[in-house]
Amino acid sequence: MDIKTYLANRRQLVDDTLTQLLPPPGNQLDRHVESMNYSLQAGGKRVRPILCMAAAEALLGRELDPRLLPVACALECIHTYSLIHDDLPAMDNDALRRGKPTNHTIYGEAGAILAGDGLLTFAFELLSRDDTPGLLPAGGRLRLIHLLAQAIGPLGMVGGQALDMAAEDRPISLAELQMIHRCKTGALITASVQTGAVLGQASEAQFQALTAYAGHLGLAFQIVDDLLNVEGTPEQLGKAAGSDAHHRKATYPALFGVDGTRKLAQESVQAAISELVGFDRNADPLRHLAEYIYRRTC
Amino acid sequence: MDIKTYLANRRQLVDDTLTQLLPPPGNQLDRHVESMNYSLQAGGKRVRPILCMAAAEALLGRELDPRLLPVACALECIHTYSLIHDDLPAMDNDALRRGKPTNHTIYGEAGAILAGDGLLTFAFELLSRDDTPGLLPAGGRLRLIHLLAQAIGPLGMVGGQALDMAAEDRPISLAELQMIHRCKTGALITASVQTGAVLGQASEAQFQALTAYAGHLGLAFQIVDDLLNVEGTPEQLGKAAGSDAHHRKATYPALFGVDGTRKLAQESVQAAISELVGFDRNADPLRHLAEYIYRRTC
Repeated sequence: MDIKTYLANRRQLVDDTLTQLLPPPGNQLDRHVESMNYSLQAGGKRVRPILCMAAAEALLGRELDPRLLPVACALECIHTYSLIHDDLPAMDNDALRRGKPTNHTIYGEAGAILAGDGLLTFAFELLSRDDTPGLLPAGGRLRLIHLLAQAIGPLGMVGGQALDMAAEDRPISLAELQMIHRCKTGALITASVQTGAVLGQASEAQFQALTAYAGHLGLAFQIVDDLLNVEGTPEQLGKAAGSDAHHRKATYPALFGVDGTRKLAQESVQAAISELVGFDRNADPLRHLAEYIYRRTC
Repeated sequence: MDIKTYLANRRQLVDDTLTQLLPPPGNQLDRHVESMNYSLQAGGKRVRPILCMAAAEALLGRELDPRLLPVACALECIHTYSLIHDDLPAMDNDALRRGKPTNHTIYGEAGAILAGDGLLTFAFELLSRDDTPGLLPAGGRLRLIHLLAQAIGPLGMVGGQALDMAAEDRPISLAELQMIHRCKTGALITASVQTGAVLGQASEAQFQALTAYAGHLGLAFQIVDDLLNVEGTPEQLGKAAGSDAHHRKATYPALFGVDGTRKLAQESVQAAISELVGFDRNADPLRHLAEYIYRRTC
Protein backbone atom coordinates (compact mmCIF):
# COMPACT_ATOMS: atom_id res chain seq x y z
CA MET A 1 0.00 0.00 0.00
CA ASP A 2 1.02 3.62 -0.58
CA ILE A 3 0.99 5.11 2.91
CA LYS A 4 1.38 8.69 1.68
CA THR A 5 -1.77 8.49 -0.44
CA TYR A 6 -3.59 6.73 2.40
CA LEU A 7 -2.61 9.46 4.85
CA ALA A 8 -3.52 12.26 2.44
CA ASN A 9 -6.96 10.76 1.79
CA ARG A 10 -7.70 10.17 5.45
CA ARG A 11 -6.47 13.60 6.39
CA GLN A 12 -8.74 15.23 3.80
CA LEU A 13 -11.69 13.24 5.14
CA VAL A 14 -11.00 14.45 8.68
CA ASP A 15 -10.55 18.06 7.53
CA ASP A 16 -13.86 18.01 5.66
CA THR A 17 -15.76 16.29 8.48
CA LEU A 18 -14.46 18.71 11.13
CA THR A 19 -15.76 21.64 9.10
CA GLN A 20 -19.17 19.98 8.78
CA LEU A 21 -19.41 19.06 12.45
CA LEU A 22 -18.62 22.46 13.99
CA PRO A 23 -21.60 24.71 14.79
CA PRO A 24 -22.51 26.65 11.62
CA PRO A 25 -21.93 30.43 11.47
CA GLY A 26 -24.78 32.90 11.81
CA ASN A 27 -25.08 33.90 15.45
CA GLN A 28 -23.40 35.92 18.18
CA LEU A 29 -21.04 33.05 18.93
CA ASP A 30 -19.34 33.15 15.52
CA ARG A 31 -16.12 34.64 16.87
CA HIS A 32 -15.77 31.89 19.49
CA VAL A 33 -16.44 29.10 16.99
CA GLU A 34 -14.06 30.82 14.55
CA SER A 35 -11.29 30.69 17.18
CA MET A 36 -11.88 26.95 17.66
CA ASN A 37 -11.87 26.41 13.90
CA TYR A 38 -8.73 28.51 13.40
CA SER A 39 -6.65 26.06 15.42
CA LEU A 40 -8.48 22.99 14.13
CA GLN A 41 -7.64 23.96 10.54
CA ALA A 42 -4.05 25.08 11.21
CA GLY A 43 -2.42 22.20 9.36
CA GLY A 44 -2.54 19.24 11.78
CA LYS A 45 -1.49 15.87 10.38
CA ARG A 46 -4.57 14.20 11.96
CA VAL A 47 -2.42 11.38 13.37
CA ARG A 48 -4.86 10.58 16.21
CA PRO A 49 -8.05 10.32 14.12
CA ILE A 50 -6.15 8.32 11.50
CA LEU A 51 -4.85 5.91 14.19
CA CYS A 52 -8.42 5.47 15.45
CA MET A 53 -9.75 4.74 11.96
CA ALA A 54 -6.82 2.44 11.12
CA ALA A 55 -7.34 0.43 14.32
CA ALA A 56 -11.04 0.03 13.53
CA GLU A 57 -10.15 -0.96 9.95
CA ALA A 58 -7.73 -3.61 11.24
CA LEU A 59 -10.80 -5.30 12.76
CA LEU A 60 -13.67 -4.34 10.43
CA GLY A 61 -11.88 -4.42 7.08
CA ARG A 62 -10.56 -1.71 4.83
CA GLU A 63 -13.87 -0.16 3.72
CA LEU A 64 -14.15 2.89 5.98
CA ASP A 65 -17.44 3.13 7.87
CA PRO A 66 -18.36 6.86 7.84
CA ARG A 67 -19.96 6.46 11.26
CA LEU A 68 -16.42 6.28 12.70
CA LEU A 69 -15.71 9.85 11.63
CA PRO A 70 -17.32 11.88 14.45
CA VAL A 71 -15.41 9.82 17.04
CA ALA A 72 -12.17 10.22 15.07
CA CYS A 73 -12.76 13.97 14.81
CA ALA A 74 -13.40 14.20 18.56
CA LEU A 75 -9.81 12.99 19.06
CA GLU A 76 -8.53 15.86 16.91
CA CYS A 77 -10.63 18.35 18.92
CA ILE A 78 -9.01 17.05 22.11
CA HIS A 79 -5.50 17.20 20.62
CA THR A 80 -6.10 20.75 19.36
CA TYR A 81 -7.44 21.91 22.76
CA SER A 82 -4.27 20.60 24.40
CA LEU A 83 -2.04 22.46 21.91
CA ILE A 84 -3.92 25.75 22.37
CA HIS A 85 -3.60 25.59 26.16
CA ASP A 86 0.06 24.40 26.02
CA ASP A 87 0.95 27.40 23.82
CA LEU A 88 -0.55 29.98 26.23
CA PRO A 89 1.70 32.67 27.72
CA ALA A 90 1.23 31.09 31.17
CA MET A 91 2.43 27.73 29.78
CA ASP A 92 5.02 27.40 26.95
CA ASN A 93 4.38 30.93 25.61
CA ASP A 94 4.76 29.94 21.96
CA ALA A 95 3.93 32.46 19.25
CA LEU A 96 4.09 29.97 16.37
CA ARG A 97 2.61 26.51 15.88
CA ARG A 98 2.92 24.65 12.58
CA GLY A 99 4.27 27.87 11.06
CA LYS A 100 1.17 29.87 11.95
CA PRO A 101 0.46 32.34 14.78
CA THR A 102 -0.82 30.49 17.84
CA ASN A 103 -4.45 30.93 18.88
CA HIS A 104 -3.79 33.45 21.65
CA THR A 105 -1.75 35.74 19.40
CA ILE A 106 -4.88 36.10 17.22
CA TYR A 107 -7.80 35.78 19.67
CA GLY A 108 -6.16 36.91 22.92
CA GLU A 109 -5.50 34.86 26.04
CA ALA A 110 -9.13 34.71 27.13
CA GLY A 111 -10.23 33.74 23.63
CA ALA A 112 -7.62 30.97 23.48
CA ILE A 113 -8.48 29.56 26.91
CA LEU A 114 -12.14 29.45 25.88
CA ALA A 115 -11.35 27.98 22.45
CA GLY A 116 -9.57 25.12 24.24
CA ASP A 117 -12.40 24.69 26.73
CA GLY A 118 -14.90 24.72 23.86
CA LEU A 119 -12.99 22.09 21.85
CA LEU A 120 -12.60 19.77 24.85
CA THR A 121 -16.30 20.00 25.63
CA PHE A 122 -17.30 19.68 21.97
CA ALA A 123 -15.30 16.45 21.77
CA PHE A 124 -17.55 14.87 24.41
CA GLU A 125 -20.59 16.21 22.56
CA LEU A 126 -19.40 14.34 19.45
CA LEU A 127 -18.51 11.19 21.40
CA SER A 128 -21.95 10.99 23.02
CA ARG A 129 -23.96 11.56 19.83
CA ASP A 130 -26.26 8.64 19.30
CA ASP A 131 -25.34 8.24 15.64
CA THR A 132 -23.77 4.80 15.51
CA PRO A 133 -26.76 2.46 15.83
CA GLY A 134 -25.77 -0.93 14.51
CA LEU A 135 -22.06 -0.07 14.72
CA LEU A 136 -21.69 0.02 18.49
CA PRO A 137 -24.16 -0.60 21.34
CA ALA A 138 -24.61 2.23 23.87
CA GLY A 139 -22.56 0.31 26.46
CA GLY A 140 -19.59 0.22 24.09
CA ARG A 141 -19.92 3.93 23.40
CA LEU A 142 -19.94 4.59 27.14
CA ARG A 143 -16.77 2.51 27.58
CA LEU A 144 -15.13 4.48 24.77
CA ILE A 145 -15.96 7.82 26.48
CA HIS A 146 -14.68 6.52 29.80
CA LEU A 147 -11.33 5.29 28.56
CA LEU A 148 -10.79 8.51 26.65
CA ALA A 149 -11.75 10.72 29.62
CA GLN A 150 -9.33 8.78 31.83
CA ALA A 151 -6.55 9.07 29.24
CA ILE A 152 -6.77 12.86 29.03
CA GLY A 153 -7.66 13.58 32.69
CA PRO A 154 -5.77 14.43 35.89
CA LEU A 155 -3.83 11.13 35.82
CA GLY A 156 -3.35 11.33 32.04
CA MET A 157 -2.78 14.14 29.55
CA VAL A 158 -3.69 17.10 31.81
CA GLY A 159 -1.61 15.63 34.64
CA GLY A 160 1.30 15.16 32.21
CA GLN A 161 1.20 18.83 31.28
CA ALA A 162 1.14 19.74 34.99
CA LEU A 163 4.24 17.57 35.54
CA ASP A 164 5.92 19.10 32.49
CA MET A 165 5.32 22.62 33.83
CA ALA A 166 6.65 21.62 37.26
CA ALA A 167 9.80 20.14 35.65
CA GLU A 168 10.80 23.32 33.79
CA ASP A 169 14.07 24.93 34.71
CA ARG A 170 15.35 22.03 36.83
CA PRO A 171 17.25 18.78 36.08
CA ILE A 172 15.03 15.79 35.39
CA SER A 173 15.58 12.02 35.59
CA LEU A 174 14.84 9.56 32.79
CA ALA A 175 12.01 8.09 34.89
CA GLU A 176 10.39 11.52 35.21
CA LEU A 177 10.84 12.22 31.51
CA GLN A 178 9.17 8.93 30.63
CA MET A 179 6.31 9.56 33.05
CA ILE A 180 5.71 13.01 31.51
CA HIS A 181 5.73 11.59 27.98
CA ARG A 182 3.51 8.67 28.89
CA CYS A 183 0.89 11.01 30.35
CA LYS A 184 1.22 14.04 28.11
CA THR A 185 1.58 12.43 24.68
CA GLY A 186 1.31 8.66 25.07
CA ALA A 187 -2.05 8.51 26.80
CA LEU A 188 -4.02 10.18 23.97
CA ILE A 189 -2.20 8.17 21.28
CA THR A 190 -3.00 4.95 23.13
CA ALA A 191 -6.61 6.06 23.66
CA SER A 192 -6.92 6.88 19.94
CA VAL A 193 -5.98 3.31 19.02
CA GLN A 194 -8.15 1.91 21.84
CA THR A 195 -11.11 3.97 20.65
CA GLY A 196 -10.74 2.40 17.22
CA ALA A 197 -10.48 -1.02 18.85
CA VAL A 198 -13.74 -0.47 20.76
CA LEU A 199 -15.46 0.80 17.58
CA GLY A 200 -14.21 -2.33 15.81
CA GLN A 201 -15.58 -4.48 18.65
CA ALA A 202 -12.16 -5.99 19.37
CA SER A 203 -11.85 -9.15 21.46
CA GLU A 204 -10.01 -8.74 24.75
CA ALA A 205 -6.83 -10.22 23.20
CA GLN A 206 -7.07 -7.91 20.19
CA PHE A 207 -7.67 -4.93 22.48
CA GLN A 208 -4.54 -5.78 24.48
CA ALA A 209 -2.40 -6.25 21.36
CA LEU A 210 -3.55 -2.90 19.90
CA THR A 211 -2.93 -1.21 23.26
CA ALA A 212 0.62 -2.59 23.33
CA TYR A 213 1.14 -1.43 19.72
CA ALA A 214 -0.01 2.06 20.72
CA GLY A 215 2.31 2.16 23.74
CA HIS A 216 5.40 1.53 21.60
CA LEU A 217 4.13 3.88 18.90
CA GLY A 218 3.54 6.69 21.40
CA LEU A 219 7.07 6.34 22.68
CA ALA A 220 8.49 6.39 19.13
CA PHE A 221 6.38 9.43 18.38
CA GLN A 222 7.73 11.38 21.33
CA ILE A 223 11.34 10.38 20.68
CA VAL A 224 11.03 11.49 17.05
CA ASP A 225 9.47 14.77 18.16
CA ASP A 226 12.46 15.38 20.43
CA LEU A 227 14.86 14.57 17.57
CA LEU A 228 13.08 16.89 15.14
CA ASN A 229 13.19 19.63 17.73
CA VAL A 230 16.99 19.38 17.82
CA GLU A 231 17.64 18.64 14.15
CA GLY A 232 14.67 19.92 12.21
CA THR A 233 14.57 23.11 10.20
CA PRO A 234 12.07 25.80 11.26
CA GLU A 235 10.13 24.89 8.08
CA GLN A 236 9.83 21.25 9.21
CA LEU A 237 8.85 22.26 12.73
CA GLY A 238 6.69 25.31 12.15
CA LYS A 239 8.54 26.97 15.03
CA ALA A 240 12.11 27.86 15.96
CA ALA A 241 14.39 24.78 16.14
CA GLY A 242 15.80 24.03 19.55
CA SER A 243 12.90 25.76 21.34
CA ASP A 244 12.54 22.88 23.81
CA ALA A 245 16.21 23.23 24.76
CA HIS A 246 15.60 26.97 25.08
CA HIS A 247 12.88 26.23 27.64
CA ARG A 248 15.38 23.80 29.24
CA LYS A 249 12.94 20.91 28.94
CA ALA A 250 14.38 17.44 29.31
CA THR A 251 14.64 15.64 25.97
CA TYR A 252 15.85 12.26 24.71
CA PRO A 253 18.72 13.73 22.64
CA ALA A 254 19.97 15.55 25.76
CA LEU A 255 20.04 12.26 27.65
CA PHE A 256 21.09 9.78 24.90
CA GLY A 257 22.64 11.86 22.11
CA VAL A 258 21.25 12.03 18.58
CA ASP A 259 22.44 8.58 17.41
CA GLY A 260 21.32 6.84 20.59
CA THR A 261 17.95 8.53 20.33
CA ARG A 262 17.47 7.50 16.68
CA LYS A 263 18.23 3.89 17.66
CA LEU A 264 15.66 4.04 20.47
CA ALA A 265 13.04 5.30 18.01
CA GLN A 266 13.79 2.45 15.60
CA GLU A 267 13.49 -0.16 18.36
CA SER A 268 10.14 1.26 19.46
CA VAL A 269 8.77 1.15 15.91
CA GLN A 270 9.84 -2.49 15.51
CA ALA A 271 8.28 -3.38 18.87
CA ALA A 272 5.02 -1.71 17.81
CA ILE A 273 4.86 -3.65 14.53
CA SER A 274 5.65 -6.95 16.25
CA GLU A 275 2.55 -6.54 18.45
CA LEU A 276 0.41 -6.84 15.30
CA VAL A 277 1.56 -10.38 14.45
CA GLY A 278 -1.93 -11.78 15.03
CA PHE A 279 -3.59 -9.35 12.57
CA ASP A 280 -4.04 -9.85 8.82
CA ARG A 281 -3.40 -7.39 5.99
CA ASN A 282 -6.22 -5.13 7.20
CA ALA A 283 -3.71 -3.97 9.82
CA ASP A 284 -1.21 -2.83 7.16
CA PRO A 285 -2.08 0.86 7.64
CA LEU A 286 -1.14 0.52 11.33
CA ARG A 287 2.18 -1.12 10.34
CA HIS A 288 2.97 1.52 7.73
CA LEU A 289 2.01 4.31 10.13
CA ALA A 290 4.64 3.12 12.61
CA GLU A 291 7.33 3.13 9.91
CA TYR A 292 6.17 6.48 8.62
CA ILE A 293 6.66 8.00 12.06
CA TYR A 294 10.25 6.77 12.16
CA ARG A 295 10.99 8.05 8.65
CA ARG A 296 10.13 11.58 9.80
CA THR A 297 13.58 11.59 11.46
CA CYS A 298 15.50 11.10 8.22
CA MET B 1 -40.00 20.29 55.21
CA ASP B 2 -37.02 22.15 56.62
CA ILE B 3 -35.13 23.26 53.54
CA LYS B 4 -32.09 24.47 55.50
CA THR B 5 -31.53 21.04 57.08
CA TYR B 6 -32.17 19.38 53.71
CA LEU B 7 -29.61 21.62 52.00
CA ALA B 8 -27.04 21.14 54.78
CA ASN B 9 -27.38 17.35 54.60
CA ARG B 10 -27.18 17.21 50.82
CA ARG B 11 -24.24 19.59 50.78
CA GLN B 12 -22.34 17.44 53.28
CA LEU B 13 -23.04 14.36 51.17
CA VAL B 14 -21.63 16.07 48.07
CA ASP B 15 -18.58 17.35 49.99
CA ASP B 16 -17.80 13.87 51.30
CA THR B 17 -18.37 12.15 47.96
CA LEU B 18 -16.18 14.61 46.05
CA THR B 19 -13.29 13.87 48.43
CA GLN B 20 -13.77 10.12 47.92
CA LEU B 21 -14.02 10.36 44.13
CA LEU B 22 -10.89 12.40 43.44
CA PRO B 23 -7.70 10.47 42.69
CA PRO B 24 -6.02 9.59 46.02
CA PRO B 25 -2.72 11.25 46.99
CA GLY B 26 0.55 9.38 46.76
CA ASN B 27 2.12 10.11 43.38
CA GLN B 28 3.86 12.82 41.38
CA LEU B 29 0.51 14.33 40.43
CA ASP B 30 -0.44 15.26 43.99
CA ARG B 31 0.07 19.00 43.43
CA HIS B 32 -2.24 18.99 40.39
CA VAL B 33 -4.97 17.04 42.16
CA GLU B 34 -4.52 19.29 45.21
CA SER B 35 -5.17 22.35 43.05
CA MET B 36 -8.40 20.79 41.74
CA ASN B 37 -9.44 19.88 45.28
CA TYR B 38 -8.60 23.34 46.63
CA SER B 39 -11.28 24.96 44.50
CA LEU B 40 -13.73 22.05 44.85
CA GLN B 41 -13.60 22.43 48.65
CA ALA B 42 -13.65 26.24 48.73
CA GLY B 43 -17.15 26.52 50.18
CA GLY B 44 -19.51 26.03 47.26
CA LYS B 45 -23.22 25.71 48.08
CA ARG B 46 -23.53 22.66 45.78
CA VAL B 47 -26.66 24.09 44.14
CA ARG B 48 -26.20 22.15 40.90
CA PRO B 49 -25.69 18.67 42.41
CA ILE B 50 -28.55 19.32 44.81
CA LEU B 51 -30.84 20.33 41.92
CA CYS B 52 -29.89 17.12 40.10
CA MET B 53 -30.63 14.97 43.15
CA ALA B 54 -33.87 16.84 43.93
CA ALA B 55 -35.11 16.40 40.34
CA ALA B 56 -34.38 12.67 40.50
CA GLU B 57 -36.12 12.47 43.90
CA ALA B 58 -39.19 14.19 42.47
CA LEU B 59 -39.55 11.14 40.23
CA LEU B 60 -38.03 8.28 42.25
CA GLY B 61 -39.16 9.25 45.76
CA ARG B 62 -37.37 10.85 48.66
CA GLU B 63 -35.00 8.01 49.58
CA LEU B 64 -31.75 9.12 47.94
CA ASP B 65 -30.17 6.49 45.68
CA PRO B 66 -26.39 6.75 46.31
CA ARG B 67 -25.76 5.80 42.69
CA LEU B 68 -26.87 9.36 41.78
CA LEU B 69 -23.95 10.88 43.63
CA PRO B 70 -21.12 10.54 41.05
CA VAL B 71 -23.30 12.22 38.42
CA ALA B 72 -24.29 14.98 40.88
CA CYS B 73 -20.61 15.50 41.78
CA ALA B 74 -19.68 15.72 38.10
CA LEU B 75 -21.91 18.81 37.90
CA GLU B 76 -19.96 20.43 40.73
CA CYS B 77 -16.66 19.62 38.99
CA ILE B 78 -17.96 21.37 35.87
CA HIS B 79 -19.18 24.39 37.83
CA THR B 80 -15.85 24.65 39.67
CA TYR B 81 -13.84 24.43 36.43
CA SER B 82 -15.88 27.33 35.03
CA LEU B 83 -15.23 29.46 38.13
CA ILE B 84 -11.48 28.78 38.06
CA HIS B 85 -11.20 29.79 34.42
CA ASP B 86 -13.52 32.82 34.83
CA ASP B 87 -11.35 34.12 37.68
CA LEU B 88 -8.09 33.96 35.65
CA PRO B 89 -6.12 37.16 35.06
CA ALA B 90 -6.94 36.94 31.34
CA MET B 91 -10.68 36.80 32.19
CA ASP B 92 -12.23 38.55 35.22
CA ASN B 93 -8.93 38.73 37.13
CA ASP B 94 -10.50 38.08 40.53
CA ALA B 95 -8.25 37.51 43.56
CA LEU B 96 -11.05 36.34 45.87
CA ARG B 97 -13.86 33.81 45.43
CA ARG B 98 -16.16 32.90 48.33
CA GLY B 99 -13.81 34.81 50.64
CA LYS B 100 -10.79 32.70 49.71
CA PRO B 101 -7.87 33.35 47.37
CA THR B 102 -8.73 32.21 43.84
CA ASN B 103 -6.98 29.16 42.41
CA HIS B 104 -4.44 31.08 40.30
CA THR B 105 -3.30 33.21 43.25
CA ILE B 106 -2.25 29.97 44.97
CA TYR B 107 -1.24 27.64 42.12
CA GLY B 108 -0.27 30.16 39.43
CA GLU B 109 -1.94 30.78 36.10
CA ALA B 110 -0.72 27.56 34.49
CA GLY B 111 -1.77 25.54 37.54
CA ALA B 112 -5.24 27.11 37.49
CA ILE B 113 -5.78 26.58 33.76
CA LEU B 114 -4.81 22.92 34.21
CA ALA B 115 -6.93 22.53 37.37
CA GLY B 116 -9.93 23.70 35.33
CA ASP B 117 -9.05 21.42 32.42
CA GLY B 118 -8.61 18.52 34.85
CA LEU B 119 -11.98 19.11 36.54
CA LEU B 120 -13.85 19.38 33.23
CA THR B 121 -12.30 16.16 32.00
CA PHE B 122 -12.78 14.39 35.33
CA ALA B 123 -16.50 15.26 35.17
CA PHE B 124 -16.84 13.22 31.98
CA GLU B 125 -14.85 10.40 33.59
CA LEU B 126 -17.43 10.34 36.40
CA LEU B 127 -20.38 10.61 34.00
CA SER B 128 -19.21 7.66 31.91
CA ARG B 129 -18.46 5.33 34.83
CA ASP B 130 -20.49 2.21 34.42
CA ASP B 131 -21.72 2.23 38.03
CA THR B 132 -25.47 2.63 37.69
CA PRO B 133 -26.62 -0.79 36.50
CA GLY B 134 -30.29 -1.16 37.27
CA LEU B 135 -30.68 2.58 37.75
CA LEU B 136 -30.18 3.71 34.17
CA PRO B 137 -29.56 1.79 30.92
CA ALA B 138 -26.39 2.71 28.99
CA GLY B 139 -28.48 4.57 26.39
CA GLY B 140 -29.87 6.85 29.09
CA ARG B 141 -26.40 7.52 30.44
CA LEU B 142 -25.25 8.43 26.94
CA ARG B 143 -28.19 10.85 26.55
CA LEU B 144 -27.28 12.42 29.89
CA ILE B 145 -23.66 12.98 28.78
CA HIS B 146 -24.81 14.45 25.49
CA LEU B 147 -27.25 16.96 26.94
CA LEU B 148 -24.68 18.06 29.50
CA ALA B 149 -21.89 18.42 26.93
CA GLN B 150 -24.18 20.53 24.74
CA ALA B 151 -25.19 22.70 27.71
CA ILE B 152 -21.60 23.59 28.62
CA GLY B 153 -20.12 23.68 25.11
CA PRO B 154 -19.50 26.33 22.44
CA LEU B 155 -23.22 27.16 22.12
CA GLY B 156 -23.74 26.91 25.91
CA MET B 157 -21.66 27.80 28.95
CA VAL B 158 -18.29 28.29 27.22
CA GLY B 159 -19.95 30.34 24.49
CA GLY B 160 -21.68 32.43 27.17
CA GLN B 161 -18.36 33.26 28.78
CA ALA B 162 -16.96 34.20 25.36
CA LEU B 163 -19.95 36.56 24.84
CA ASP B 164 -19.50 38.00 28.33
CA MET B 165 -15.83 38.76 27.67
CA ALA B 166 -16.72 40.37 24.33
CA ALA B 167 -19.36 42.54 26.06
CA GLU B 168 -16.99 44.05 28.64
CA ASP B 169 -16.45 47.78 28.52
CA ARG B 170 -19.26 48.53 26.09
CA PRO B 171 -23.02 49.19 26.44
CA ILE B 172 -25.19 46.08 26.19
CA SER B 173 -28.85 45.48 25.32
CA LEU B 174 -31.30 43.49 27.43
CA ALA B 175 -31.44 40.85 24.68
CA GLU B 176 -27.67 40.44 24.83
CA LEU B 177 -27.69 40.31 28.63
CA GLN B 178 -30.34 37.58 28.58
CA MET B 179 -28.44 35.60 25.94
CA ILE B 180 -25.26 35.78 28.04
CA HIS B 181 -27.08 34.66 31.20
CA ARG B 182 -28.94 31.90 29.41
CA CYS B 183 -25.68 30.44 28.08
CA LYS B 184 -23.28 31.23 30.90
CA THR B 185 -25.40 30.38 33.96
CA GLY B 186 -28.77 29.08 32.80
CA ALA B 187 -27.53 26.25 30.60
CA LEU B 188 -25.74 24.35 33.40
CA ILE B 189 -28.61 24.90 35.87
CA THR B 190 -31.07 23.55 33.31
CA ALA B 191 -28.78 20.64 32.51
CA SER B 192 -28.43 19.85 36.24
CA VAL B 193 -32.20 19.46 36.55
CA GLN B 194 -32.41 17.58 33.24
CA THR B 195 -29.67 15.21 34.36
CA GLY B 196 -31.74 14.39 37.44
CA ALA B 197 -34.78 13.93 35.22
CA VAL B 198 -32.94 11.43 33.02
CA LEU B 199 -31.63 9.57 36.10
CA GLY B 200 -35.21 9.45 37.38
CA GLN B 201 -36.36 8.07 33.99
CA ALA B 202 -38.79 10.96 33.49
CA SER B 203 -41.55 10.71 30.88
CA GLU B 204 -41.30 13.21 28.02
CA ALA B 205 -43.95 15.43 29.70
CA GLN B 206 -42.13 15.30 33.05
CA PHE B 207 -38.83 16.10 31.32
CA GLN B 208 -40.39 19.15 29.65
CA ALA B 209 -41.97 20.40 32.91
CA LEU B 210 -38.69 20.04 34.81
CA THR B 211 -36.83 21.79 31.98
CA ALA B 212 -39.29 24.71 32.15
CA TYR B 213 -38.89 24.83 35.97
CA ALA B 214 -35.12 25.01 35.51
CA GLY B 215 -35.37 27.78 32.93
CA HIS B 216 -37.26 30.05 35.34
CA LEU B 217 -35.03 29.04 38.23
CA GLY B 218 -31.86 29.82 36.29
CA LEU B 219 -33.19 33.28 35.48
CA ALA B 220 -34.11 33.92 39.14
CA PHE B 221 -30.68 32.72 40.17
CA GLN B 222 -28.89 35.14 37.89
CA ILE B 223 -31.11 38.08 38.84
CA VAL B 224 -30.49 37.40 42.54
CA ASP B 225 -26.75 37.16 41.87
CA ASP B 226 -26.85 40.57 40.23
CA LEU B 227 -28.81 42.00 43.20
CA LEU B 228 -26.41 40.56 45.76
CA ASN B 229 -23.51 41.98 43.80
CA VAL B 230 -24.99 45.47 44.21
CA GLU B 231 -26.40 45.12 47.72
CA GLY B 232 -24.49 42.33 49.44
CA THR B 233 -21.76 42.82 52.00
CA PRO B 234 -18.29 41.49 51.15
CA GLU B 235 -18.94 38.79 53.78
CA GLN B 236 -22.07 37.62 51.91
CA LEU B 237 -20.31 37.74 48.58
CA GLY B 238 -16.84 36.50 49.41
CA LYS B 239 -15.50 39.29 47.20
CA ALA B 240 -15.68 43.08 46.99
CA ALA B 241 -19.29 44.30 46.57
CA GLY B 242 -20.01 46.03 43.28
CA SER B 243 -17.17 44.24 41.50
CA ASP B 244 -19.36 43.51 38.47
CA ALA B 245 -20.11 47.25 38.14
CA HIS B 246 -16.38 47.84 38.49
CA HIS B 247 -15.82 45.62 35.46
CA ARG B 248 -18.70 47.54 33.83
CA LYS B 249 -20.63 44.35 33.17
CA ALA B 250 -24.30 44.73 32.29
CA THR B 251 -26.54 43.78 35.24
CA TYR B 252 -30.29 43.66 35.95
CA PRO B 253 -30.15 46.37 38.66
CA ALA B 254 -28.41 48.69 36.19
CA LEU B 255 -31.25 48.14 33.71
CA PHE B 256 -34.30 47.86 36.03
CA GLY B 257 -33.27 49.37 39.37
CA VAL B 258 -33.14 47.39 42.63
CA ASP B 259 -36.91 47.25 43.25
CA GLY B 260 -37.74 46.33 39.68
CA THR B 261 -35.09 43.63 39.76
CA ARG B 262 -36.41 42.15 43.01
CA LYS B 263 -39.88 41.96 41.47
CA LEU B 264 -38.48 40.18 38.41
CA ALA B 265 -36.80 37.62 40.66
CA GLN B 266 -40.06 36.98 42.55
CA GLU B 267 -41.97 36.46 39.30
CA SER B 268 -39.40 33.98 38.03
CA VAL B 269 -39.55 31.97 41.25
CA GLN B 270 -43.36 31.77 41.08
CA ALA B 271 -43.20 30.74 37.42
CA ALA B 272 -40.72 27.98 38.32
CA ILE B 273 -42.94 26.59 41.09
CA SER B 274 -46.03 26.66 38.88
CA GLU B 275 -44.31 24.35 36.38
CA LEU B 276 -44.31 21.62 39.06
CA VAL B 277 -48.12 21.48 39.33
CA GLY B 278 -48.21 17.90 38.00
CA PHE B 279 -45.74 16.61 40.63
CA ASP B 280 -46.55 15.26 44.11
CA ARG B 281 -44.88 16.04 47.43
CA ASN B 282 -41.67 14.33 46.31
CA ALA B 283 -41.06 17.55 44.35
CA ASP B 284 -41.19 19.69 47.52
CA PRO B 285 -37.40 20.10 47.66
CA LEU B 286 -37.51 21.61 44.15
CA ARG B 287 -40.28 24.01 45.27
CA HIS B 288 -38.45 25.02 48.44
CA LEU B 289 -35.19 25.43 46.52
CA ALA B 290 -36.82 28.04 44.28
CA GLU B 291 -38.10 30.02 47.27
CA TYR B 292 -34.76 29.68 49.02
CA ILE B 293 -33.02 31.27 46.06
CA TYR B 294 -35.35 34.27 46.23
CA ARG B 295 -34.89 34.66 50.01
CA ARG B 296 -31.15 35.12 49.47
CA THR B 297 -32.00 38.67 48.34
CA CYS B 298 -33.61 39.67 51.67
